Amino acid sequence: MSLASRRTLVTGGTVVSTTGATPMDVLVEGERIAALLAPGAGEGFTVDATIDAAGMYVLPGGVDVHTHMQLPFGGTEASDTFETGTRAAVWGGTTTIVDFAVQRAGEVVQESLAAWHEKAAGNCAIDYGFHMILGGVDDDALKAMDHLAEHEGISSFKLFMAYPGVFLSDDGQILRAMQQASGNGSTIMMHAENGSAIDVLVSQALARGDVDPVHHGLTRPSAMEGEAVNRAIALAEVAGDTPLYIVHVSASQAVERIAEARSQGRNVFAETCPQYLYLTLEDHLGAPGFEGAKYVCSTPLRSRHESHAADLWKGLRTDDLAVVSTDHCPFCFKDQKELGRGNFAKIPNGMGGVEHRMDLIHQGVVDGELSLQRWVETCSTTPARMFGMYPRKGVLAPGSDADIVVYDPKGTTRISAETHHMAIDYSAFEGFELTGAVRTVMSRGTVVLDRGVYSGRPGHGRFLKRGPSQYLR
Amino acid sequence: MSLASRRTLVTGGTVVSTTGATPMDVLVEGERIAALLAPGAGEGFTVDATIDAAGMYVLPGGVDVHTHMQLPFGGTEASDTFETGTRAAVWGGTTTIVDFAVQRAGEVVQESLAAWHEKAAGNCAIDYGFHMILGGVDDDALKAMDHLAEHEGISSFKLFMAYPGVFLSDDGQILRAMQQASGNGSTIMMHAENGSAIDVLVSQALARGDVDPVHHGLTRPSAMEGEAVNRAIALAEVAGDTPLYIVHVSASQAVERIAEARSQGRNVFAETCPQYLYLTLEDHLGAPGFEGAKYVCSTPLRSRHESHAADLWKGLRTDDLAVVSTDHCPFCFKDQKELGRGNFAKIPNGMGGVEHRMDLIHQGVVDGELSLQRWVETCSTTPARMFGMYPRKGVLAPGSDADIVVYDPKGTTRISAETHHMAIDYSAFEGFELTGAVRTVMSRGTVVLDRGVYSGRPGHGRFLKRGPSQYLR
Amino acid sequence: MSLASRRTLVTGGTVVSTTGATPMDVLVEGERIAALLAPGAGEGFTVDATIDAAGMYVLPGGVDVHTHMQLPFGGTEASDTFETGTRAAVWGGTTTIVDFAVQRAGEVVQESLAAWHEKAAGNCAIDYGFHMILGGVDDDALKAMDHLAEHEGISSFKLFMAYPGVFLSDDGQILRAMQQASGNGSTIMMHAENGSAIDVLVSQALARGDVDPVHHGLTRPSAMEGEAVNRAIALAEVAGDTPLYIVHVSASQAVERIAEARSQGRNVFAETCPQYLYLTLEDHLGAPGFEGAKYVCSTPLRSRHESHAADLWKGLRTDDLAVVSTDHCPFCFKDQKELGRGNFAKIPNGMGGVEHRMDLIHQGVVDGELSLQRWVETCSTTPARMFGMYPRKGVLAPGSDADIVVYDPKGTTRISAETHHMAIDYSAFEGFELTGAVRTVMSRGTVVLDRGVYSGRPGHGRFLKRGPSQYLR
Amino acid sequence: MSLASRRTLVTGGTVVSTTGATPMDVLVEGERIAALLAPGAGEGFTVDATIDAAGMYVLPGGVDVHTHMQLPFGGTEASDTFETGTRAAVWGGTTTIVDFAVQRAGEVVQESLAAWHEKAAGNCAIDYGFHMILGGVDDDALKAMDHLAEHEGISSFKLFMAYPGVFLSDDGQILRAMQQASGNGSTIMMHAENGSAIDVLVSQALARGDVDPVHHGLTRPSAMEGEAVNRAIALAEVAGDTPLYIVHVSASQAVERIAEARSQGRNVFAETCPQYLYLTLEDHLGAPGFEGAKYVCSTPLRSRHESHAADLWKGLRTDDLAVVSTDHCPFCFKDQKELGRGNFAKIPNGMGGVEHRMDLIHQGVVDGELSLQRWVETCSTTPARMFGMYPRKGVLAPGSDADIVVYDPKGTTRISAETHHMAIDYSAFEGFELTGAVRTVMSRGTVVLDRGVYSGRPGHGRFLKRGPSQYLR
Repeated sequence: MSLASRRTLVTGGTVVSTTGATPMDVLVEGERIAALLAPGAGEGFTVDATIDAAGMYVLPGGVDVHTHMQLPFGGTEASDTFETGTRAAVWGGTTTIVDFAVQRAGEVVQESLAAWHEKAAGNCAIDYGFHMILGGVDDDALKAMDHLAEHEGISSFKLFMAYPGVFLSDDGQILRAMQQASGNGSTIMMHAENGSAIDVLVSQALARGDVDPVHHGLTRPSAMEGEAVNRAIALAEVAGDTPLYIVHVSASQAVERIAEARSQGRNVFAETCPQYLYLTLEDHLGAPGFEGAKYVCSTPLRSRHESHAADLWKGLRTDDLAVVSTDHCPFCFKDQKELGRGNFAKIPNGMGGVEHRMDLIHQGVVDGELSLQRWVETCSTTPARMFGMYPRKGVLAPGSDADIVVYDPKGTTRISAETHHMAIDYSAFEGFELTGAVRTVMSRGTVVLDRGVYSGRPGHGRFLKRGPSQYLR
Repeated sequence: MSLASRRTLVTGGTVVSTTGATPMDVLVEGERIAALLAPGAGEGFTVDATIDAAGMYVLPGGVDVHTHMQLPFGGTEASDTFETGTRAAVWGGTTTIVDFAVQRAGEVVQESLAAWHEKAAGNCAIDYGFHMILGGVDDDALKAMDHLAEHEGISSFKLFMAYPGVFLSDDGQILRAMQQASGNGSTIMMHAENGSAIDVLVSQALARGDVDPVHHGLTRPSAMEGEAVNRAIALAEVAGDTPLYIVHVSASQAVERIAEARSQGRNVFAETCPQYLYLTLEDHLGAPGFEGAKYVCSTPLRSRHESHAADLWKGLRTDDLAVVSTDHCPFCFKDQKELGRGNFAKIPNGMGGVEHRMDLIHQGVVDGELSLQRWVETCSTTPARMFGMYPRKGVLAPGSDADIVVYDPKGTTRISAETHHMAIDYSAFEGFELTGAVRTVMSRGTVVLDRGVYSGRPGHGRFLKRGPSQYLR
Repeated sequence: MSLASRRTLVTGGTVVSTTGATPMDVLVEGERIAALLAPGAGEGFTVDATIDAAGMYVLPGGVDVHTHMQLPFGGTEASDTFETGTRAAVWGGTTTIVDFAVQRAGEVVQESLAAWHEKAAGNCAIDYGFHMILGGVDDDALKAMDHLAEHEGISSFKLFMAYPGVFLSDDGQILRAMQQASGNGSTIMMHAENGSAIDVLVSQALARGDVDPVHHGLTRPSAMEGEAVNRAIALAEVAGDTPLYIVHVSASQAVERIAEARSQGRNVFAETCPQYLYLTLEDHLGAPGFEGAKYVCSTPLRSRHESHAADLWKGLRTDDLAVVSTDHCPFCFKDQKELGRGNFAKIPNGMGGVEHRMDLIHQGVVDGELSLQRWVETCSTTPARMFGMYPRKGVLAPGSDADIVVYDPKGTTRISAETHHMAIDYSAFEGFELTGAVRTVMSRGTVVLDRGVYSGRPGHGRFLKRGPSQYLR
Repeated sequence: MSLASRRTLVTGGTVVSTTGATPMDVLVEGERIAALLAPGAGEGFTVDATIDAAGMYVLPGGVDVHTHMQLPFGGTEASDTFETGTRAAVWGGTTTIVDFAVQRAGEVVQESLAAWHEKAAGNCAIDYGFHMILGGVDDDALKAMDHLAEHEGISSFKLFMAYPGVFLSDDGQILRAMQQASGNGSTIMMHAENGSAIDVLVSQALARGDVDPVHHGLTRPSAMEGEAVNRAIALAEVAGDTPLYIVHVSASQAVERIAEARSQGRNVFAETCPQYLYLTLEDHLGAPGFEGAKYVCSTPLRSRHESHAADLWKGLRTDDLAVVSTDHCPFCFKDQKELGRGNFAKIPNGMGGVEHRMDLIHQGVVDGELSLQRWVETCSTTPARMFGMYPRKGVLAPGSDADIVVYDPKGTTRISAETHHMAIDYSAFEGFELTGAVRTVMSRGTVVLDRGVYSGRPGHGRFLKRGPSQYLR
């Protein structure tokens, strides 16, 4: 029997989709879903294996569209390789990632992309795609955008309004890239913080001797995120309502501007990440001593004395925030985060999270913050639709890739660096005990995790050529 | 072979869901969908019949949650019976209606409901439910709300801020009904127009001799719809964020207030109707002579010189308007609409539309106003979810009722009173030529229409006991 | 020497106007201001008396456009007569009041007005005008509006959205009165609370046994004030942008709707009162035992856990709130407030404040809430302009009535029932110690108070015929 | 008799202030106003001269806080010198200007200021002040801000978000200057347009061959003005709610953001100019041939197909726009504007208007756009208060400078290059015929214009040391 014809039936579970939760069986044939069946209706099929999902949710595998495996940053490199990072993703019920290939100023886009293909190829446990970071928008880079969108399956390009001298594009460059995207149907992703103003605040803080990690947050005011979001939206308008996707939204002001644009019917979309929903500037970034370094990421954690987290949850409910991603960008405390002892500006920005997104947001369902359907929608279906992977990913439907998660809503997930599978020596969510647990994960028809036994392998994951966003008017 | 086990395969079509359009086969067994199958995957099944849907869309049947079959109004009665009205619905690809049973002040709610059951039972070609209009909110009616919600499958209650002395509930009554709904998990539907103010304007117009149909619209200013919407939202807040569903939204001001509440995360929902998207006060209600009487409905058609229609389309895109219904309430021009010659206030309010909703909104897809997915979402899936019929209705999924429409996206639909199937002697959309046409309609597994041949029958449709809205946080 | 030619020079002070504070002398001749003079420039004048205002502010006398002297309410009568109330006003630096004559349903407007003239004539220490409350809007009352506006110097009419069965006008009546006002150039004042909904909440509270004073506030939710404000604004729009003045604004939601209308350029104006700026539902209305009865007024005091007071101060700064009045409506604790022991709904609504408005708002200047100019503007100039008394009142200008307050910015005012001059046995502001104190008050050229010696007399005050608002576009 | 004691009485006129229009006489003694007198009350004074103002308005002289006399720009220089420009101002009833001294990157602020003093000293017909343009924000310039604010009477500093490479400050520089202003109590004035994006659009237009004047406007989209305004507001928030004054607002989007900030109680203020109220992109900037060059200014004229002009008038009514200035920056058509034939980007930016502001805005009063009081407030009182010149300027009050305009509300002003007094060979308002005319102008007690006879002289005008804005909370 060839693999292509191997049949597995997931029986007895409740399939959760964006519109409801219904008892259904899922028939997998080879790498794809062959059928969704009313309970019992599958008797006409001969199957090779059965997965008993009684009492379980059956979900489309998680799609995490914001990861940075082995990203070079600030003289070091994110600690998860494509191998370790995608393996950790499986443990957490994520079966697709879209990572970021990076072009810096002076580099040829295609070569940068090739370098990232090299890093990932043969190493991933699950399917993966690339967004392209443009750190140097010039005529060549603009032309390359067309090529990547048309031929390379790269339909989304990330720009930075932060990090002057490193990644920052000025407003003229942003406008040109947006115009190009309007032309080729791709999406502009934006790190929206006013880097020029923030750099002044950082210098002033350091000059005052305010060097602890908490000053990372205090020098990146939420007003400067809201401002940059507004600017990106205005530039996209001038460029012809270019599809715009704001990454890692953490501030109320940002949500407000996004909501405003969306209520005007604009092609504006956004994601947030679990850290902004659960962690705060005071409790985590402001932890005593150098402990706060664990929580240094940009955009930063926000103050619990303001309404940021509540506004983010609300945004997820109202769809002003369409996606939950992780911005997974892990740096070990030892040797990496420690580069910034005595100078918060030298702490590598990022934290690890690819493993826990599905559980953390399911907890939001348990807590009444989000509906069950929105959990699946924000963590799987919408990211797949947003970045041109649907219906291959993000949905349990005949013909779709058999990326399936059997999820135990009554299970318990305890997060700890001692037990997690990411290559990082601490967890930002250490000690969290969550209701709900991944039981079984299937990637393109292959069981890669079952009841705590990992059976995936590097190289199983394939590069995904992506098309345009499905969300444009 | 029993009917229950009869198997039909809809093959070769593209299933349109709320998240995408995918080639899939649909296996029907008896009254239900047994399976969704990847093309070709159904070979393991023996089937009794095959419906070739090549080149066609395959949709969940339309769900029209706002019809008024044989409604008594202003001394006459809506011209479609449950028999003629549901048959016309089939012709237009609608396989479920939710009509309104009516309690008037002084009547016992349960008796009113029984009277409506009597009208409908045995006469409907498709499944049907009832909302309950409360025209007299008092202690008994409030108690009845609990009974109907718990035992009778009536989970939505409609109140009127218009029609003083007929249907209008004052704000105290509205508040009490909302409190009751908050308690029993049901939804308050609201006709939101300030009836007290409008009646003054109507009297003044008649006193001035402004008696033509256009004055129906001019005496119902859009500001009075926006006001009432705001008031309903505020009352629902005080009542404990009662689920609130605004019917037949026609005015920009109403959309604005709904959007405002929704962006605050409130349980506020709304529908619009095709007439507000396509017809205007000047062109239709203001037609020469008494012609405008054809277009008298409340809320009224709005001015083309303002942005109402554009704002409604935008609201459908942003989900501030979640549903398209018809407010189907037909009165013949002859003898019925003519009751208001010389006095617009005596023109029966309403127009017929149950037959053309799916086509008219598909035209919006063709025109770029709406995505294909939102067509299915606003016309089928969301109304089913909103009013507690999902997953039985509103989705093509294993286990769901086999209410299926095979839709030809390249077909043509010409609307005319000469050819339509509603019992009304004119069409508000006379002469419209639309891209897209219903080809085949299946109701609970039975083909009731195919290529212009109607094969339904009165009594096939069954009463639907409905549960609570699926949309509440 | 005739009184008309008697000359007094107020020297050495700083005249505070709406645009600044400048050293100036003020020459009074008879009842009017004859000149404003640069310091020393008055040497050419022979004067009969000099008031040394060195170190003092010199202000136009306070104008309180919302008082209810001896108002019949709930079976009793407000405890200040026109005599005692206007005397108390003088003590607090207020030299003009506009009180409310009351027509109830079934009464003839002109007769009601005559009755109020009777109460006031010969008894007032300072000039006074009347607004007309319309408790019964019918054809006769509408006609009377024109008459009063044209001939009687009554250019403002107050309606109630609260108090069903007593004062409440329904929306149709409101619309008609607004139309009438649009026609005759007068202003509609509105008590904006949804009385119909509030009455339901009151009945439910009493039925639950929630009878303490705090429930007066809890049954009048701020959302119901915001709702009514929105409704009044919408009705005024339909009536032709009728000038609309919202009285005693206490809720953030109300401020928001007023600000929204004003930013659209609408003829919408509003006042707040000192009690809403300083007192709260929890601390005062919710005081132990029956103590809270002292603070029962409508609109009610609001929760300190919300942002109402801060939003009101902000509204005063931004001019969304244009006026500070007192809604002076005193009832003694003994025998009057006590009518509501065991039933908060029977507590007479109102508190005394006419004596302390100028000091309480000056404290806002001291606290940095408001500029010195806005103090004069909100407490004197704008109310005079708003209600057609300018330039006779509200400004220190040649030709204006010599209503002048010499105010000591470094003085201290201690508020206590033991020392105040209002005919009420408690003070809502008992124990307040404020910076700033009235030193000398002149009414139409006559010194009526100086350094703690009252020299006014009943009958000095004359009825003011008022013209239309000066604020309309 | 010394000049200081010369007395003039302006009699019989109606003094217009920010709160009303009242018959009053104005007594001038030397350079100052000695008294405001009730009509007839001045009989006790001996006067040297009388100005009969019967039937006339008597106003505080106009204050134009945005002029650019002999500004070097694009290789040429604005065509009005301080001599010709201030003389023209007198003809138009303006008695104070605040011009802009210019520091460019690399220049020492104090030296730049000295250079501007040199240009103006001895040449001005009326009093004048300077704002300081900072074209190069660095440590020295920041220190100089303190010095100028404290010692030089320069309390306002202008920055540019437009003109990269010439005047543009980046966001970090803007933030630093705002922080400095927060510290020394001065105001930041902002040219708010996104210069980086605009430069891209300009280059693209030129590359396409779109070289006509209209493309000046088309390459400066209103969205880029709204964006920059939002950014400036956000940066000012981070800098500690620095007083921020947006110059030459022309776009609805800018008004919206300003109104939003003001409704939050922020220290945000703005001006517009007559050209944006009366002229449009299509009619003027888009005039045939090179004619449009006359109307090239930045921000540009906006489209008549959008609501910009209406929104600006509304903003003036609501005080979201506080000031009308001219941005007077004249360049002759011949030889100057012509520098941009074949390349709109080379057309010097600016137009002449200092002579016609008072008349053009009075026309707004005549047209019902603005009240009489707001005319005086926006054109005289508020600019004086905003920029620290009150009460010396901007008000007719004892002690104030006797800058007085006698204005004939029934006169006619015809605008034409043939008759105007500005040194420019065309008029942007050619052919305008306005109701209202300046009759007599007094500057610091000296009649400088009377019934068409100019009697001013260079050097009469003195430099005004200004203090901080009076508008800050």
